Amino acid sequence: MRNLLLTLCYDGAGYHGWQIQENAVAVQQVLQEAIEKVLQQKPDIKGCSRTDTGVHAHCFCVSMKTGHPIPCQRLQAALNHFLPPDMAVLSCREVPLSFHARYSCVGKEYEYVIWNSPVRSPFLRDRALHYWYPLDVEQLNRAAAHFVGPHDFTSFCTTDSRDRGDMTRTVTASHWRREGEKVIYTVAADGFLYNMVRILVGTMLRVAERKFTPEEMPRILQAKDRRKAGPTAPACGLYLNRVFYDPADLILPGEKGE
Amino acid sequence: MRNLLLTLCYDGAGYHGWQIQENAVAVQQVLQEAIEKVLQQKPDIKGCSRTDTGVHAHCFCVSMKTGHPIPCQRLQAALNHFLPPDMAVLSCREVPLSFHARYSCVGKEYEYVIWNSPVRSPFLRDRALHYWYPLDVEQLNRAAAHFVGPHDFTSFCTTDSRDRGDMTRTVTASHWRREGEKVIYTVAADGFLYNMVRILVGTMLRVAERKFTPEEMPRILQAKDRRKAGPTAPACGLYLNRVFYDPADLILPGEKGE
Repeated sequence: MRNLLLTLCYDGAGYHGWQIQENAVAVQQVLQEAIEKVLQQKPDIKGCSRTDTGVHAHCFCVSMKTGHPIPCQRLQAALNHFLPPDMAVLSCREVPLSFHARYSCVGKEYEYVIWNSPVRSPFLRDRALHYWYPLDVEQLNRAAAHFVGPHDFTSFCTTDSRDRGDMTRTVTASHWRREGEKVIYTVAADGFLYNMVRILVGTMLRVAERKFTPEEMPRILQAKDRRKAGPTAPACGLYLNRVFYDPADLILPGEKGE
Repeated sequence: MRNLLLTLCYDGAGYHGWQIQENAVAVQQVLQEAIEKVLQQKPDIKGCSRTDTGVHAHCFCVSMKTGHPIPCQRLQAALNHFLPPDMAVLSCREVPLSFHARYSCVGKEYEYVIWNSPVRSPFLRDRALHYWYPLDVEQLNRAAAHFVGPHDFTSFCTTDSRDRGDMTRTVTASHWRREGEKVIYTVAADGFLYNMVRILVGTMLRVAERKFTPEEMPRILQAKDRRKAGPTAPACGLYLNRVFYDPADLILPGEKGE
């Protein structure tokens, strides 16, 4: 038995998120069917998170246990042959049997992309939030800075969500940048609550609209009340950008660390 | 009667080029139908060029004569409401009645985008040529430099094409650049023959494959024979990027030049 780590890139516009469900096409199902075609075995695959309908991934990690002896490179090439064009396997490597794409994950980085222009972009439909009102990146950054550090993010989590227990997450990066008419938010943390990035973005857009000041962010955090934050920004702007693991968890027995 | 200049941005993946034709959806037809919805008049519109099936435009110019008094800004907003999401009107202004999007055009700039990576990009399907073999931008630029200046481009024009008469075009810019895994060719000229950019790219990719040397480009030009050049690169990587006019042709009588 081997354990393989696949990194996947996908345009989420055509999928109902990662997780397999009835009456809707999920990324997991499409990947699973491609693996079955290649290995002639029903695979047991684990995703690093459950992305929502319409959310994209530059790098989504999947672990998969298999008794099949196929070399990693050949599996990657075969999967890219069978997968649809809006999905691609970027890499494939063997990892220890103890590795799990979700439970071994120590952090993630998301990007949220806004097309900030009076006119929509035909090339970014379903891939960015189209936002007319001119955004002031400096002001957004004053708001974003308040989220860095360990905080209880209850106010930034969809109520009735799957998240239970400790709502504290440690945000290690939270900043905005402008690239022409694109305005991009980057946020990294040891973990994310349900809809957390989209509510952070929706709340900071309220700052842009002068409905909140940047200095009100700590008060919203302290309230631990979803109703105090802004709306949930649309899924189409959200990209899972990077997934972090402890390198020690990736090294096979007998393999040398770098 | 007024003459309006519209600039249009579109993702060409869903269209059979600009020009109206039977049994296929063209950009011209979709724009014309949107204008009819807004003005309740069948418009007479002229495009700056006839882009092929699958070719994109960051800026495609259209002129349109109308007796309708609608203000430019309102026309733009109404068209963006009726046009599909893969198309957008970037601007609308009144120009002299003598202006014609195609005949007044003094030059154009195209970009050709290559995704140069072993693995395809799910976000660039239908928007770039996926090319595995690592490209050397310096070497491509040595080839590209030979096309600058006035040349007879018969070798770089699809035979049996619509082009007749003088096959000389003056190329004012011809260079490659790399942006991460994207490799982009920019070419500007006073005019282009049918499929000229795509054959230039196809020929330079043969240079990358060591089937031609950069120094053979002048010989291919001199041959005036399509069979001496390389293949026609796919349409999906091609973008009409800019269209040039003489500013004097855009100034309304009574309006001050800058």
